[in-house]
Amino acid sequence: MIQRKMTRPIHIGPVQIGGGAPVSVQSMTNTKTTDTKSTVAQIRALQAAGCDIVRLAVPDMDAAKNLGNIIQSVTVPLVADIHFDYRLALEAIRQGIQGLRLNPGNIGGEERVKAVVREAKAAGIPIRIGVNAGSLDKRILAKNGGQITPEALVESAMQHVRILEAQDFYDMKISLKAHDVPLTIAAYRLMSQTVDYPLHLGITEAGTVKSGIIKSAVGMGALLAEGIGDTFRVSLTGDPVVEVRVANEILKSLGLRDYGPTMISCPTCGRTSIDLAAIADQVEERMRSIKEPIHVAVMGCVVNGPGEARGADVGIAGGCGEGLVFRKGEIIRKVPEDQLVPELFKEIDAILEERKANESK
Amino acid sequence: MIQRKMTRPIHIGPVQIGGGAPVSVQSMTNTKTTDTKSTVAQIRALQAAGCDIVRLAVPDMDAAKNLGNIIQSVTVPLVADIHFDYRLALEAIRQGIQGLRLNPGNIGGEERVKAVVREAKAAGIPIRIGVNAGSLDKRILAKNGGQITPEALVESAMQHVRILEAQDFYDMKISLKAHDVPLTIAAYRLMSQTVDYPLHLGITEAGTVKSGIIKSAVGMGALLAEGIGDTFRVSLTGDPVVEVRVANEILKSLGLRDYGPTMISCPTCGRTSIDLAAIADQVEERMRSIKEPIHVAVMGCVVNGPGEARGADVGIAGGCGEGLVFRKGEIIRKVPEDQLVPELFKEIDAILEERKANESK
Repeated sequence: MIQRKMTRPIHIGPVQIGGGAPVSVQSMTNTKTTDTKSTVAQIRALQAAGCDIVRLAVPDMDAAKNLGNIIQSVTVPLVADIHFDYRLALEAIRQGIQGLRLNPGNIGGEERVKAVVREAKAAGIPIRIGVNAGSLDKRILAKNGGQITPEALVESAMQHVRILEAQDFYDMKISLKAHDVPLTIAAYRLMSQTVDYPLHLGITEAGTVKSGIIKSAVGMGALLAEGIGDTFRVSLTGDPVVEVRVANEILKSLGLRDYGPTMISCPTCGRTSIDLAAIADQVEERMRSIKEPIHVAVMGCVVNGPGEARGADVGIAGGCGEGLVFRKGEIIRKVPEDQLVPELFKEIDAILEERKANESK
Repeated sequence: MIQRKMTRPIHIGPVQIGGGAPVSVQSMTNTKTTDTKSTVAQIRALQAAGCDIVRLAVPDMDAAKNLGNIIQSVTVPLVADIHFDYRLALEAIRQGIQGLRLNPGNIGGEERVKAVVREAKAAGIPIRIGVNAGSLDKRILAKNGGQITPEALVESAMQHVRILEAQDFYDMKISLKAHDVPLTIAAYRLMSQTVDYPLHLGITEAGTVKSGIIKSAVGMGALLAEGIGDTFRVSLTGDPVVEVRVANEILKSLGLRDYGPTMISCPTCGRTSIDLAAIADQVEERMRSIKEPIHVAVMGCVVNGPGEARGADVGIAGGCGEGLVFRKGEIIRKVPEDQLVPELFKEIDAILEERKANESK
């Protein structure tokens, strides 16, 4: 139901971004890139949680020189995050990195840009241009009356874009980050009308996990629902694995990715006579190990529950001491209330078995 | 930065919905409406959390007859949720209810509609028409090939709208709920093009708190960012106070409401040398009692932190053993790391004091 904007495709390792590819999920390690063991462990945890591309900070030459050790120990493609020093970019490419995040206007002139572009082209590596509301070019800020506007963010990005285009380099994606959500939305909308390079969505400094999740879901959700955005990272303070889980929930809610179980449950009302919240939490926790897409409903009302949840593959509805198990809205059996959850999981197992049997036919 | 769609204003008690009024937050009690004490306590808790309008289930005449007892004990306006039985609506009006949620096509014919409309008009009470994807009219479903489409949801709502319009009643708002987010977004977009009645946003059966928050933020966020929606409820399984907190965070993130503290903090990276997540959580928890709008930044980097967070009223940035306190990006003082949080709250108190002093001038 979402009409995605068509962009020029780029590739980070085997992952295509733009050009009709599924929206990919990114995250960033918060380990020291010189610490191979911790960094590899975190990258693997991110991949297991459903992350498609991982970015690493490369603040110095020691970090750059360690990239090869990390790359050979993981299977997910990696991007090096580089500021100012073009030698770090050259070293990252030599080490086999699959993508760069680097603003070509900030690395000290045309010769250095040429050197990086030559090596990136030879290696087939795309570059992300990343403009940040917090560190906008002073001249552009002055032109916009000191205000950080969508136009200022886009103009800043376009300066970097033109530097790469002048070197016949088009293998890029663009991000425009601000912590202000309406500003971010407006800036990406404008960027999307301006170029057809793929866009990398993000909201910077989104806050604590609690408030950051909401800010990210609102901002990314609004853009993705308009068809804008080819890849994105949810930035949260804390364990990046949570970023990946949230990113996948955002995509799932928009029907842009089908990954693992999706649960629906009704808000309790005066008509509910069972502890639905506790049951829903229990079901959600127990489903964590399931990787196959399956839609599961936990409803509080035996009268309306099965009908309202007819879109779900399987569900339960609880009443006064008794409950129902249903599939696609059709009631399968009546069970005592304390058997609802075990009976639900019996049914989930049956569905997953049936699917396997059908696939092997 | 968000251009809101202009709708016809209605009033639920003192709260205006539509016609340029701020987007209002609603929730629903999950107590028995016949239990005055628990219901009043929950309504007050919802109001304290920032809820503008509270809805109550009215499943029978005992519940309807108890509404007056509840209404006289609270100051937030109330809406009675009624299905099928028009006598409950008449009794709710008699009891002094400020709004009705009732589908006029489901109460048994024109005479009953006339009776309800006459009393609602006399009392100046608006009616919400609420269409639910799970209980769509079978004829409309059949016309759409059995599919629940945006068009089917809008057509179903329009049947009810026309019944009220035929009685010269225009004091209404409309909701179109589905648990599928893209379907919900598409249906509200279409409804918004079809009528200028105010729209009440919602996603039904949004799931557990964790996944439901993301689904709600994505769906409401996308619509509100397009200027669609005059009032809304976040439906979560569990304590409705959480619904209100989430709803307010959604509005705050879009700049549609300024309520209490807003915190930004940066995602940690390889450059961070303090436990930013723990500090951010500590600051967020300690700010819960603040009702005034204030923007607070908690940053992990003394070099970029103050500049990136120049939009914040006040902030801290931590480094290696030392940290900075800043206001609007300007560094105020350097403090030992373990003093960062107490120094931040000293500064927050100072800002709130200064504001009070300025207001009383």
